[in-house]
Amino acid sequence: GVNPDLASERQTASFSVEKLTAWLDGGAEQTRLRRAVVEAIERDPVFSRENQYFQSQNERYEAAVRKAVHLQKKMHEMGWSHEGPESKYIYRAVAGDIAFLLHRVFMRSISVLGSDEQIAKWIPLASQYQLIGSYAQTELGHGTYLQGLETTAVFDVATQEFILNTPKISAMKWWPGDMGRSATHTVVFAQLYVHGKCYGIHPFIVQIRSLQDHSLCPGIIAGDIGPKMNFEHIDNGYLMLQNVRVPRENMLNKFCEVQPDGTYVRRGSQKINYFTMTSVRISLISGEAVTPLMKACTIAIRYSAVRRQSQLKPGEQEAKILDYQTQQEKLLPQLAAAYAFHLIDDYLQELFDRGYREIQRKNFDTLPELHALSSGFKAMVTQYCTSGVEICLRACGGHGYSLLSGLPSLYTKIIASCIYEGENTILLLQTARFLVKSFMAASTGQSVPPSVTYLAAAKSRKCPAKNKSDFLSPAIYTEAYQHMAVRLISSTAAKLQDLIQSGVKKHDAWNRCTVQLAQAAKAHCHYITVKNFAETVEKLESKAGIQKIMKHLCDLFALHGIFSNTGVFLHDGYISGAQMDMVTASYLDLLAIIRKDAVPLVDAFDFTDKSLNSALGCYDGQVYQRLYEWARKSPTNKQISPAYEKYLKPLLHNTLSKL
Amino acid sequence: GVNPDLASERQTASFSVEKLTAWLDGGAEQTRLRRAVVEAIERDPVFSRENQYFQSQNERYEAAVRKAVHLQKKMHEMGWSHEGPESKYIYRAVAGDIAFLLHRVFMRSISVLGSDEQIAKWIPLASQYQLIGSYAQTELGHGTYLQGLETTAVFDVATQEFILNTPKISAMKWWPGDMGRSATHTVVFAQLYVHGKCYGIHPFIVQIRSLQDHSLCPGIIAGDIGPKMNFEHIDNGYLMLQNVRVPRENMLNKFCEVQPDGTYVRRGSQKINYFTMTSVRISLISGEAVTPLMKACTIAIRYSAVRRQSQLKPGEQEAKILDYQTQQEKLLPQLAAAYAFHLIDDYLQELFDRGYREIQRKNFDTLPELHALSSGFKAMVTQYCTSGVEICLRACGGHGYSLLSGLPSLYTKIIASCIYEGENTILLLQTARFLVKSFMAASTGQSVPPSVTYLAAAKSRKCPAKNKSDFLSPAIYTEAYQHMAVRLISSTAAKLQDLIQSGVKKHDAWNRCTVQLAQAAKAHCHYITVKNFAETVEKLESKAGIQKIMKHLCDLFALHGIFSNTGVFLHDGYISGAQMDMVTASYLDLLAIIRKDAVPLVDAFDFTDKSLNSALGCYDGQVYQRLYEWARKSPTNKQISPAYEKYLKPLLHNTLSKL
Repeated sequence: GVNPDLASERQTASFSVEKLTAWLDGGAEQTRLRRAVVEAIERDPVFSRENQYFQSQNERYEAAVRKAVHLQKKMHEMGWSHEGPESKYIYRAVAGDIAFLLHRVFMRSISVLGSDEQIAKWIPLASQYQLIGSYAQTELGHGTYLQGLETTAVFDVATQEFILNTPKISAMKWWPGDMGRSATHTVVFAQLYVHGKCYGIHPFIVQIRSLQDHSLCPGIIAGDIGPKMNFEHIDNGYLMLQNVRVPRENMLNKFCEVQPDGTYVRRGSQKINYFTMTSVRISLISGEAVTPLMKACTIAIRYSAVRRQSQLKPGEQEAKILDYQTQQEKLLPQLAAAYAFHLIDDYLQELFDRGYREIQRKNFDTLPELHALSSGFKAMVTQYCTSGVEICLRACGGHGYSLLSGLPSLYTKIIASCIYEGENTILLLQTARFLVKSFMAASTGQSVPPSVTYLAAAKSRKCPAKNKSDFLSPAIYTEAYQHMAVRLISSTAAKLQDLIQSGVKKHDAWNRCTVQLAQAAKAHCHYITVKNFAETVEKLESKAGIQKIMKHLCDLFALHGIFSNTGVFLHDGYISGAQMDMVTASYLDLLAIIRKDAVPLVDAFDFTDKSLNSALGCYDGQVYQRLYEWARKSPTNKQISPAYEKYLKPLLHNTLSKL
Repeated sequence: GVNPDLASERQTASFSVEKLTAWLDGGAEQTRLRRAVVEAIERDPVFSRENQYFQSQNERYEAAVRKAVHLQKKMHEMGWSHEGPESKYIYRAVAGDIAFLLHRVFMRSISVLGSDEQIAKWIPLASQYQLIGSYAQTELGHGTYLQGLETTAVFDVATQEFILNTPKISAMKWWPGDMGRSATHTVVFAQLYVHGKCYGIHPFIVQIRSLQDHSLCPGIIAGDIGPKMNFEHIDNGYLMLQNVRVPRENMLNKFCEVQPDGTYVRRGSQKINYFTMTSVRISLISGEAVTPLMKACTIAIRYSAVRRQSQLKPGEQEAKILDYQTQQEKLLPQLAAAYAFHLIDDYLQELFDRGYREIQRKNFDTLPELHALSSGFKAMVTQYCTSGVEICLRACGGHGYSLLSGLPSLYTKIIASCIYEGENTILLLQTARFLVKSFMAASTGQSVPPSVTYLAAAKSRKCPAKNKSDFLSPAIYTEAYQHMAVRLISSTAAKLQDLIQSGVKKHDAWNRCTVQLAQAAKAHCHYITVKNFAETVEKLESKAGIQKIMKHLCDLFALHGIFSNTGVFLHDGYISGAQMDMVTASYLDLLAIIRKDAVPLVDAFDFTDKSLNSALGCYDGQVYQRLYEWARKSPTNKQISPAYEKYLKPLLHNTLSKL
């Protein structure tokens, strides 16, 4: 049965959980579809994650390969396709714990960068798994700065081949997923040399393992890079190339080609490369950042409604920890952020789709804005969600620290999202470059992309709020965020100009402003997130049942942001000290209001117990029984440790001196 | 040889690294002693941590037991004792990776809570490891709130025994270290019942495993609680008691006793219990929080001097990432914090020693202050150091995420320090209670403990700084911190009073202020840390060689705190917006200054390569070679995975349909 402490939380929901779930999914039909996929996956024992927390890196890898292979069969059986509506739910259902994710990147890079002939040759082989692909870009000594890659590909006119080499240890490919133990092929990024001239980075398809017996091909040294903070199921690999020859046709040549005589031909726009990165950054926000935060909130909030600790009122039963203001202040802003970022993901997706339609018409005008937004939001959302998951973990005390809570693995995985697909600080600085440029353009009356037109608008100098309830007005707080973003962008742009005018070299001036530029980029994304949340809530008029609670969450998200960053709002007096006290009062009031719906709000995320894989987060709230049951299954309880015979027994039997 | 990029950093040190090391150690003689201990431990292969990152929980446990047993022999050989000057260096040298730490807590609890007879009986047995002890306080359903523990001990007059029981699953002992697989005895905390009356929590010595064959004793159910985020080497355990009988003499009875007829006698002061907690909290700051942060800084800063990425100046070699302002802003404040907290540890230690001398004279007056400071600093320092280690990890990009960097294990271990020995939020609220009380007393002219006399002093209303260099004056910034702490404490105390006067019940009013109370407690500790750092630097006059760089670090620590919390200084206009711009300018200037000495400043921590156990942090800076060498040793490269024959081969050989 359900723990009465959790059951009671559900009886007082101010809204229909089912309706909120359907809205989050984009309609009841989507909910139905998602549940069908999840059910089919979870019913199949091959996809079980029951023993995940007890497995070694080798065991995790084997299980992930097994699942990936089995998934092909399953999809065939179920009539699902990679392009079908089910596909986005499959990844959620397997909880990312599956191999061959880089195989898809391998295919995508060929589709985007390859010629029609190359696509016709390689994509069918890959689709039918007659090879397993990976994507070898990052090197031991080079990550984000692609121009610095050191792997070389020299064209040999005589044999019509490229000769690939790893000239030094820092040039070794390092980190590519699926490459350590699985892949037979990979796309290698290398500096192209023809007749002694370097043409920069180009992609080459290279076979690394035999299709017959999986042994390494001649000239290939490859293996697994060893243990990581998470991703034990993925065989991130290393690759060293020693005079490896591939035919001329293996350079992906949609945008440039080396002709048989060595003539280098460039064609088409290179800008499309941006678009691939943009697409990846936007696509990871939902699955790799928002979903884990939603799961962490579900686990921590359900547990906080069941865990009782200390007396709140003297003489009464120990209180649910969710009733403590400090616990609410830890968890409820994370819950509000999960909703805010779910909505910003919709916003970015729509922007992306619109941009994509334009690009298909050969109009590349939206690319700079899309690139800036995808970079900034990737950085801001992954950073926010990572610290949100950490807060949830710590809010569960000692039990949160047990792997069985599910929280440590959520954390150790999500933190990687701050690093991969562009390190967050570097991404924020790319956004900042766009913002400074747009601000300059706007100040001189030039037209700027829609998301930054606000930089040109005239601003009021003081926040008009008179009492704490004024701060529950989206107009008031959205305006405050806008003012703050404009101030940070304009003052940093001014500092940059001043430095340059005082004779500091441009690159040095830029470097000296980067701490503030990164802050300005975050402020911009924060503003857009608040504005988008408020606008979405406004459009919910037809759904009165959920509009009210969404309005509360929007208010909480906005006021939490002000409460946690008071300085940037107080700095120029836009918000006064007295007004900040009103913000604090409104913010703390909201915690008590949203606390009442906290459990229904996480129930609406609709995670199954299997997908949470948490002894603390189960729907029935029977946390202590489950912790005990799961702990007993641990391999540490399955055998008497050899430590007893070897060390403890001699010690206890007083043979210490003879050891 | 040493990587030239690291060697060049050392040639320009503005101070003597050796002298700074000696100062940190408390004198050159201490440095010599520490190095001798570290060398003796590291030379012994039993203490090797070489394979640590590749080991399973079972393997880690076995190694930790082996090391603990071997350490006894080693200490005997070397003539070291647990009370000797070497003892504090032994733990540092084994890097905490050792069993039987709870055995020491078992002994300490008997020494503190036991009668002379009990001490005479149990301590010799424990010292000679004729038993292995643990400490069973925390339960599945109860952590910090000891009064809520549910285990029972009923006195049976007929047999002169206590009958111990675990009445329900939430009463199961959960988490005690060394209990899952090693301990033969433990101190169980249980609610004492005599003749049906409950006398509250008392400690009982209970044998849980046979001294002959290590089997569980009758009525005992015990085992390992399974995998955790770290501490794989420790067998944290569970324990269920079913009518377990222990003789009357097994209740630790220094402060209270059950006489043969069931008469309950209380004697002596209970206050001393506070002192034990105080002692543990202060003792963990150095080893469990500051040392890991120092290690993380060493790894991240050395790596940042070796890692080159992107062009800073067009046309030049790629720049060391340590030359980027954003990287400096991540790492250097953590470095300054490591020094600040090393010094606050000295401060607390001295306060503690003084308090202990008083207590030995039966003067308990310093206890409330000591309790408040130890709680607040435990919370503040562990929180700060945990986020510092995370920043270091992320600042190393992808390679920081590899276990081989050493950073993930530092992080997953240090985060536990925010939870154990008192959850940080609860500890901050204990400090806040003391601060509010002291503030009230000070306002009405009563005397208050030395650390809080500042609450009564008259304050200036505006910061007198006129330009950015004024903010390099310790008087200016210490005053700002003091003002801010007073404001947060007094305004929260006022809010609390207002609520109570408006009719809100006391406990409810308190709960409604807790978010702000916790903030006020942090502000107090931050102020004391800055003040102590500044005073220590001032006293360094005789050591001119290191005074200058310590002054820079002190300035950086103080200004980073203002820069990161601008709101609390701007709120009442004590610092104006224009002055805050000066703070920012001074702060950013300092980064460039300290950057020049960054590597020497971490070298001064004097960690050996073995103690860092990091491919990125070695003294010679040969990071890429080491990553490659270590990765090849991974068990994932030691065997062909069965996944190939079972899943990959059938897939690649196009037998998908038959799977």
